[in-house]
Amino acid sequence: MQTPKKVGITGSGLVGSLLAIYLKRQGHHVDVYDRRPDIRNMEFSGRSINLAVSTRGWKALEYVGIREDIQALAIPMDKRAIHVQGKPVYYQYYGKEGEAIYSISRGVLNKKMIDLAEQAGANFIFNSKVWDVSLSEAILYTGGSEKESWEPQEYDLIFGADGAFSRIRHKMQRSSMFNYSQKFLKTGYKELSIPAGAGNTHKMDKNSLHIWPRGEFMLIALPNLDGSFTCTLFMPYHGACSFEQLDTESKVTEFFKAHFDDVIKDMPELLTEFFKNPTSSLVTIKCEPWTSFDKVALIGDAAHAIVPFYGQGMNVGFEDITVLNQFIEKHGDNWKAIFENYQSERKPNADAVAELSYRNFIEMSSKTADEKFILRKNIEKRFAAKYPDKWMPLYSRVTFSTDPYSHALEQGDFQKSIMDKVMEMDDIEQIWDSQEVENKILQELQTK
Amino acid sequence: MQTPKKVGITGSGLVGSLLAIYLKRQGHHVDVYDRRPDIRNMEFSGRSINLAVSTRGWKALEYVGIREDIQALAIPMDKRAIHVQGKPVYYQYYGKEGEAIYSISRGVLNKKMIDLAEQAGANFIFNSKVWDVSLSEAILYTGGSEKESWEPQEYDLIFGADGAFSRIRHKMQRSSMFNYSQKFLKTGYKELSIPAGAGNTHKMDKNSLHIWPRGEFMLIALPNLDGSFTCTLFMPYHGACSFEQLDTESKVTEFFKAHFDDVIKDMPELLTEFFKNPTSSLVTIKCEPWTSFDKVALIGDAAHAIVPFYGQGMNVGFEDITVLNQFIEKHGDNWKAIFENYQSERKPNADAVAELSYRNFIEMSSKTADEKFILRKNIEKRFAAKYPDKWMPLYSRVTFSTDPYSHALEQGDFQKSIMDKVMEMDDIEQIWDSQEVENKILQELQTK
Repeated sequence: MQTPKKVGITGSGLVGSLLAIYLKRQGHHVDVYDRRPDIRNMEFSGRSINLAVSTRGWKALEYVGIREDIQALAIPMDKRAIHVQGKPVYYQYYGKEGEAIYSISRGVLNKKMIDLAEQAGANFIFNSKVWDVSLSEAILYTGGSEKESWEPQEYDLIFGADGAFSRIRHKMQRSSMFNYSQKFLKTGYKELSIPAGAGNTHKMDKNSLHIWPRGEFMLIALPNLDGSFTCTLFMPYHGACSFEQLDTESKVTEFFKAHFDDVIKDMPELLTEFFKNPTSSLVTIKCEPWTSFDKVALIGDAAHAIVPFYGQGMNVGFEDITVLNQFIEKHGDNWKAIFENYQSERKPNADAVAELSYRNFIEMSSKTADEKFILRKNIEKRFAAKYPDKWMPLYSRVTFSTDPYSHALEQGDFQKSIMDKVMEMDDIEQIWDSQEVENKILQELQTK
Repeated sequence: MQTPKKVGITGSGLVGSLLAIYLKRQGHHVDVYDRRPDIRNMEFSGRSINLAVSTRGWKALEYVGIREDIQALAIPMDKRAIHVQGKPVYYQYYGKEGEAIYSISRGVLNKKMIDLAEQAGANFIFNSKVWDVSLSEAILYTGGSEKESWEPQEYDLIFGADGAFSRIRHKMQRSSMFNYSQKFLKTGYKELSIPAGAGNTHKMDKNSLHIWPRGEFMLIALPNLDGSFTCTLFMPYHGACSFEQLDTESKVTEFFKAHFDDVIKDMPELLTEFFKNPTSSLVTIKCEPWTSFDKVALIGDAAHAIVPFYGQGMNVGFEDITVLNQFIEKHGDNWKAIFENYQSERKPNADAVAELSYRNFIEMSSKTADEKFILRKNIEKRFAAKYPDKWMPLYSRVTFSTDPYSHALEQGDFQKSIMDKVMEMDDIEQIWDSQEVENKILQELQTK
């Protein structure tokens, strides 16, 4: 059991809202601050990739009984639809029969999460900028501008769920012994869209995550309930094929005709969107410690921003809450123990999913178009189906299990070393489904 | 030739002062801002490790004709004096006959550098806090406090030489696409001292850098001109032997008697200093880019703070100035080319010296007490003496050459791989100075 505390959360995003629901259910007073207006009253901005909810995300939602509410807003995607130029679309299933990731618009999900958190009794304070925080006393300082005098807001506990550019973390960073890194990719992204067809139908298969892999750059499309797709173009900022180069309407048109000719006809707003929507950056942020004075903790992107290529950003943030909650249930009012365990359990897993996500850009943008890669996937899939206790493919372990990310990374590296050897076997294209290959994998598995 | 510019430098430390001298000689107007009072009017604080000037540092000083001024304040150290418990002091020479690093007090050096920069015509503005900077317009905003209105100070160029916690870099960090990391060691340090003996004599050999290597922790002592030594205790913050543990006078006395019994008699102020002087942290800071809008550049610790275990911190900062100056002389008024070349030349070298410095803690604190390590050093030294064109020991390459640090790191790793094989030869203790060992090294050198 827990003694009710006065808890302040900064950030009314997905993690802040879900954390508010968890903490309300434990009987705490919860105030959620956001510097932005209530997004329920506004159009969501054109700079978001659709989210893919997977097992870790669902687990966190299910525990507080809101899985169905969210699933009603999502579309299952059980496969990749790979659009290679001059070839028919190739479908690559993500997992076993019945396994899927769920596409949902960030804006739609966030609005719903705030509704649900308000229903749970959390108090949302929008348009309120947190300018400073006392880490030792758990006081948030709010006010209209940086130069005004600020109002102190006193709490027992504060959670920084204020995203990749967290103010709370920024304050921690100014204290000594705070390890921190931010690393930007040279690739940026831009949101585009494919509107619904007649009668709100989808113009492509709606149960797929569509990928146009082109090496240095790629286009992806995720379905929405209303028949549209949210598309994202990932491309370097500078260089031969880059955002920098596409500075006129005719260059954009020419580029899409050259590289995405099967989809350009379904993007009537391409030119408007391309020049209206910002080119956004992709950053990996790591830090340590995540907690301060047993009173302040970081959670979600504020603790570990990752690049989106494994579709895990929201899922890892929701799993933070699952793990935090497990320690709350275990340690009761001992917040020192809760915070210590939360950090030591989560930090290596956040580092691992950051690495996995970083690596997956190569898989998505290049390897999905590669025959050898498809063969490799098929060999793995065949073996995994026959020996499910001996082999879970890395993608499945990350996406369809709750195995810690650090263990997934380690197992994935081990499996990769085995598959590298298998792929070097003579005539692997011919013998890929033979007993010989199976035996080779079984033998290599003994070496660990 | 250069068109005179109005240049602002933040930070009146060693790099800021030397840079001011260089820029004055090129005819620019130079203002140097520092948030602290003029250190020439104050006692220098008890939180500094003595500096070791080596070849790269001397080169930068020599170019503007001030080497002799500085050398007069320094003491050459041509060797390590290694104090292993229960054994006589062992002397390990740093380089060849006549090669030495030069011990100098940071306070003494900084005061002299400011004098020299003022004589060169630079304008120092002390007690002036820079709160913000416009990177695109090269404006510094100064003022008494964060909440007051600030005075804009307009420049053509700004150099951030304001150290590891640079305000200028802090502003860059808030812009997109700025890669940044700060990583603290779990080891901290504390300044202590050995006062001069009768008649300003040194109580130990004055031409040595004294080390008491104890594995997880170590004490070092560097000579001063006045007969004293500045000592530094490096030790973990937490754990069995740690600063955290040494919280009473009797524990400190007991600890020094147990581990540094040959020197405690020469440290009459030990207890006072131990509890008066702060325990300071050790941080590695990396960032990129170093320049912004062709108007603002970072230099020295502001661009690349490193840990002190290779004695290179000031030397790498001074070498930044040498390299910047080479590009100024080459590109004249083309500051875009100057900044681009400065960054692309220096960034990999700063990363390399950060790595070398990080690794050297292990060498100093553990390996210097290890027989195998001493043998390895002796084999290398013998071979290098016979084949100076084939082998320059890593320490010499870093300290007594101006070979780029990135090349030194690469060569050092290659040499280490060779020496690892040599040390595995049968009876290496007996045959270390044989033709067989020499041939083995010659043969391995062919493999690159």
